[in-house]
Amino acid sequence: MTADPHSGAEPVLDAIATTRAIRRYTADPIPDEDLSRILFAATRAPSGSNRQSFRFLVLRDGPNAADAKAILGEAFRAGWSAKRSDDGYGAGSGADPDSPKARTGRAMQHFVDHFEETPVVVLACMVGRKGHLTDGGSVYPACQNLLLAARALGYGGVMTMWHAPVEDQLRELLAIPDDVFVMATIPLGIPQGNHGPVRRRPVGELVFDDAWESGAAWATEPPGTRHTSAGPRSRS
Amino acid sequence: MTADPHSGAEPVLDAIATTRAIRRYTADPIPDEDLSRILFAATRAPSGSNRQSFRFLVLRDGPNAADAKAILGEAFRAGWSAKRSDDGYGAGSGADPDSPKARTGRAMQHFVDHFEETPVVVLACMVGRKGHLTDGGSVYPACQNLLLAARALGYGGVMTMWHAPVEDQLRELLAIPDDVFVMATIPLGIPQGNHGPVRRRPVGELVFDDAWESGAAWATEPPGTRHTSAGPRSRS
Repeated sequence: MTADPHSGAEPVLDAIATTRAIRRYTADPIPDEDLSRILFAATRAPSGSNRQSFRFLVLRDGPNAADAKAILGEAFRAGWSAKRSDDGYGAGSGADPDSPKARTGRAMQHFVDHFEETPVVVLACMVGRKGHLTDGGSVYPACQNLLLAARALGYGGVMTMWHAPVEDQLRELLAIPDDVFVMATIPLGIPQGNHGPVRRRPVGELVFDDAWESGAAWATEPPGTRHTSAGPRSRS
Repeated sequence: MTADPHSGAEPVLDAIATTRAIRRYTADPIPDEDLSRILFAATRAPSGSNRQSFRFLVLRDGPNAADAKAILGEAFRAGWSAKRSDDGYGAGSGADPDSPKARTGRAMQHFVDHFEETPVVVLACMVGRKGHLTDGGSVYPACQNLLLAARALGYGGVMTMWHAPVEDQLRELLAIPDDVFVMATIPLGIPQGNHGPVRRRPVGELVFDDAWESGAAWATEPPGTRHTSAGPRSRS
């Protein structure tokens, strides 16, 4: 018996390979119908015992949205400012304005400077925290569904954690209960610029067969796959 | 400006909506080429600062695989035995052999009884644990990519956590370093039976607009969407 591939296997694999972080958006809103499909896709994700402990709080242009985006914008600017300094974005190769590091730095600055203009911001929340390392297994698959569906429909976004220092402010503003946790903040919009293949380490560094760091000879990459250097990108 | 949908948007959204937990597999192996594509898709996922803290240890038929599957099989049988009792699978509606609860119970029993025969078992691991609630945000998006790619190519699997009690045994057998954590165990194979739309709560219970539990009027579901009852499935 052989597997029976989905009739649209290639578009699925292509979407997965080209869903990269998008941090620059046009000013256009996301139409209700598309936003609905994106959020529906998110909720199709698996979760522990199918308990569906994910919740999505969507910020657009309602009474709270501008305030929430302003709180987040401040936090994102502070987060980027700390990271830029800690990770030395202006030093080393970053001193060359044409380096990838410098380009990333400019993109990040633009992202946080314009955060309040983001058309849609989704707070991915978790109810029923158990305090296990694996808790996120019931929320982050849904976040990835959301990003893939957005990409399929022509939108882009990025999963961020810079809401953490202002989580209590958001909780108060948005009436989020104390036992609910904001697991990710996901801005969404129409990309300025392109999607395109993501850049990762060589698969041989990430996929092992039968034992830790034992190479998987069968694990190959499509021609033209682009790589990051080993180690954290921000320290490269 | 309007969004520019991916040429294969519908297959992507369809794959997301029909990737459900698959726990019965044929005895057939997964060909190298397909397994490679599935794992490549996993590694395309986002992670914090693109640090790619996910690693995938694949168990097929190498020297360690049978031992690892046996260790996992014992743990899965113990896990299911505890859950069956705790969640009262034989009681209430589960006493009726035709009830969804009883069917789920039989499927789970078959799954754990035949665990050792699973063609491929993937241990999704995390390096660089920080001890944050959001740590899983760097691993579980990759697990969802893996499951979606498997579904696209005609395979099925399920994300499970029942390895936890035997994580140290696996670490020793497979030479996994102490500071690496097994975040999920994902069995994969050709499904016996069908994929099909997943069953979740109504979207109105999961998606809010502008404030917690504030209904999102724009969030709708496709006709024919099937629902779980509110609350944990295993307690229904």
